Amino acid sequence: MDISHIEHIGIAVKSIEESRKYYEDVLGLKCYAIEEVEDQKVKTAFFMVGQTKIELLESTDPEGPIGQFIEKRGEGIHHIAYAANDLQKSLNDLKESGIRLIDENPRAGAEGLNIAFLHPKSTYGVLTELCEK
Amino acid sequence: MDISHIEHIGIAVKSIEESRKYYEDVLGLKCYAIEEVEDQKVKTAFFMVGQTKIELLESTDPEGPIGQFIEKRGEGIHHIAYAANDLQKSLNDLKESGIRLIDENPRAGAEGLNIAFLHPKSTYGVLTELCEK
Repeated sequence: MDISHIEHIGIAVKSIEESRKYYEDVLGLKCYAIEEVEDQKVKTAFFMVGQTKIELLESTDPEGPIGQFIEKRGEGIHHIAYAANDLQKSLNDLKESGIRLIDENPRAGAEGLNIAFLHPKSTYGVLTELCEK
Repeated sequence: MDISHIEHIGIAVKSIEESRKYYEDVLGLKCYAIEEVEDQKVKTAFFMVGQTKIELLESTDPEGPIGQFIEKRGEGIHHIAYAANDLQKSLNDLKESGIRLIDENPRAGAEGLNIAFLHPKSTYGVLTELCEK
C-alpha cells in the first residue's frame, strides 16, 4: 500500500462548541471548517496541524457510531486516517491478505474524500481509515 | 502555544514482534528504530509516516502505564504527541490556564526528546504529550 502521511486523527467529543475552546485557545490551533456528515450521524470540526488534521466528532444521534463510542468509552481518540493512493486496489489487497474491512468499496466521507474503514479486530485495536483525494 | 506538527501517535500493543508485521507488511511502513524506555516500562518501535511517527508501545511490566492501559481497555491508540517549541514556557502557560499537567517540567522521553504529558481530564479524554527537540 502507498501511504503518504497521516490525513487526520478522529477524536470523539461530547460537544464541539465546548472542546474547540481547548484546541483553539489552549493549543492555539485554528478551526477551519465545520461540516455535518449525515450518514455517519456526526458533526465534524477540522483543525490543521502540519500535514495532519485533527477532526473532532460530535454525535448528532445517540445511536450513531460516535454516540455509541462515547457511551461505552467516554470522550477520546476514535480513529487514525492514513492518506492512501489507489484506494480500491488497496482495499482489494488488504482483503486478500486477510484484513477485515468495514467498507469493501470506497465511499464518500467528509471534505469530499473517498474513504474506507478497516476493522480494529484486524489492526491491533486501532480503528483505521484510509482516505483518497 | 507554538505547535508545528503531530510528532507521533502512541499505540499500545501486546507484542511489537506480532503487530509490527501489520505495520510493515500490510500498511507498508518501515520500522526505523526500536528502543526501550526504562522509566516508562515500555519497549517502543517507530515508523515514519510523512511528518509523523507511529510509536508502538509494548509494556515491559504489567504494572507500568501501558500494561495497565491494555489491561483496562485492550490494545489501541494511547496518546497523541504534538511537537511544541519552548516546552517549559508552554507548560507554565497551560498550568496558568487551568490545564492539569502530569509533568510540570519537561523530562527525557524516547529519541532524545524533552517531553511532558497533559492529563486527559483536562483535554477532553485525550492523553496528550508535548515534545521538544
